[in-house]
Amino acid sequence: MTKKIKRLAITGGTHGNELTGVYLINKFKNDPNLVKREGFETIIMHNNLKAIKKCTRYIDKDLNRTFTIEGLNDPNRSSYEDVLAKVINAKLGPKGAKDRNCDFIVDLHSTTSNMGLSIVIDNDSKLTWQVAAYLKEMEPRVNIFRWLGDTEDASFVNSISEDGFAIEVGAIPQGVLRADLFFDTEKLLHYMLDYFEKLNNEKFKKIYTSIEIYDHIELLDYPRDKNGDITAMVHPNLQDNDYTKLSNGDPLFITLDGEVIKYDRSEELYALFINEAAYYEKGFAMCLAEKKVIPI
Amino acid sequence: MTKKIKRLAITGGTHGNELTGVYLINKFKNDPNLVKREGFETIIMHNNLKAIKKCTRYIDKDLNRTFTIEGLNDPNRSSYEDVLAKVINAKLGPKGAKDRNCDFIVDLHSTTSNMGLSIVIDNDSKLTWQVAAYLKEMEPRVNIFRWLGDTEDASFVNSISEDGFAIEVGAIPQGVLRADLFFDTEKLLHYMLDYFEKLNNEKFKKIYTSIEIYDHIELLDYPRDKNGDITAMVHPNLQDNDYTKLSNGDPLFITLDGEVIKYDRSEELYALFINEAAYYEKGFAMCLAEKKVIPI
Repeated sequence: MTKKIKRLAITGGTHGNELTGVYLINKFKNDPNLVKREGFETIIMHNNLKAIKKCTRYIDKDLNRTFTIEGLNDPNRSSYEDVLAKVINAKLGPKGAKDRNCDFIVDLHSTTSNMGLSIVIDNDSKLTWQVAAYLKEMEPRVNIFRWLGDTEDASFVNSISEDGFAIEVGAIPQGVLRADLFFDTEKLLHYMLDYFEKLNNEKFKKIYTSIEIYDHIELLDYPRDKNGDITAMVHPNLQDNDYTKLSNGDPLFITLDGEVIKYDRSEELYALFINEAAYYEKGFAMCLAEKKVIPI
Repeated sequence: MTKKIKRLAITGGTHGNELTGVYLINKFKNDPNLVKREGFETIIMHNNLKAIKKCTRYIDKDLNRTFTIEGLNDPNRSSYEDVLAKVINAKLGPKGAKDRNCDFIVDLHSTTSNMGLSIVIDNDSKLTWQVAAYLKEMEPRVNIFRWLGDTEDASFVNSISEDGFAIEVGAIPQGVLRADLFFDTEKLLHYMLDYFEKLNNEKFKKIYTSIEIYDHIELLDYPRDKNGDITAMVHPNLQDNDYTKLSNGDPLFITLDGEVIKYDRSEELYALFINEAAYYEKGFAMCLAEKKVIPI
């Protein structure tokens, strides 16, 4: 039987310029009954108030890469987000402990990539995958991306709890609120809350055994010159076409001078997080992933 | 006869997170022959290097609202952009002088609104409108927006010279480069350079006498609560539909709770710059404009 939960957290504004989460949390704070269900407590919180106020992704560093065990336990890390991560970890975790203040964390994000309704999972906890499968059943537009990450250890906000994930919706520019994806995200949260309520009441007994996912293979950077400046852009065929299959010879980039750079490998992979604004500085133009069905 | 020009400036990166202009200037710096024409000099420059490096709109204040005569002449204005505006004005102007270092300035912008290929004009100089009419003839997708502004005096970079305008392309998220609109913008610049070359060589004698424009009427803010937080989003019918005609009863906004707020006036106006990220803090959700044909 799938385990029950006692306390769940919905967090937003981990990146201060991703307004879907910021305003959903505003909405829930104004009317907490919206996220109240029987049998468990729902915590709602903004993670990075200072970044939200400045409408910027972060103040000193990316908060959503700051929740490694090593970082949380290092007293010398003193940037704004390092300190903030410790505070959030104390409130919702602590990460790695047997008893934590929170059983499940869903962290709300948006992306400039056309990722539609995506769930990004970086753990292999059973409940997480059951919830994801339920959401995909309720809303077939949902895609699941298993993220192996750009840090050695799991570093997302949701990694504080054993179970949880990030919801990533797009395309939305940074600093912009889009009504369609705002309501879509809210709908996913209500499905999720209803699932936990039914699970706790033993009204939901279905166990999912497999799920279709996009499995992280590698991160691909833009072509750059020796100064680090980008010399080629995402090719128009690929722009806005996240979850597209790449075959050998497909156009990937186009240089500023108009020369096409092609996908040059025999393995057919899928392109995700194409041309996400926040990833220019991280050094990747897209994620390449394998599409597969995995047992859960 | 339309006047000849001796020196023209193409500027980009006035807003450091609008990458179309930043990278077009990079391209032209790498190969100045691309913008070289007979009979006049072409200056190419990045306007706000510090903001470009941080990939942010500005450091202290919006540079593209800083070129009022009053501001440029006030020695007490000492923010980063106030000082920078004086430097740019000394280089390309000075504004208001009889002899200026530059006859025409085109400043490259992008917007998160779906403005396509737009030319924003804030002066009534004859040459400016002739160029705009030529560009619209060469590229019928071009729309012309006559901007009355959110400052009392003309405050754009291009207001330093008697003639000039801003090119605004979108939809592009801040911090993102899109190949399609990059090449579209470049094409407009080449049409413009060719026009001036033909004009100087007296190979182009056509005088345009009228043009279709969208004329600024007013700026419309989002509904907000007493703290200034947005309580309603742009309605999905309007999102991505810049240059749409609004008739009485058309949906404008939708509250976070799902209530529709309608356009409530008999005058039919057009919505532009819908849901532009940078305008949240300025306090407007869209510009309302009148569509008309004016003599030029």
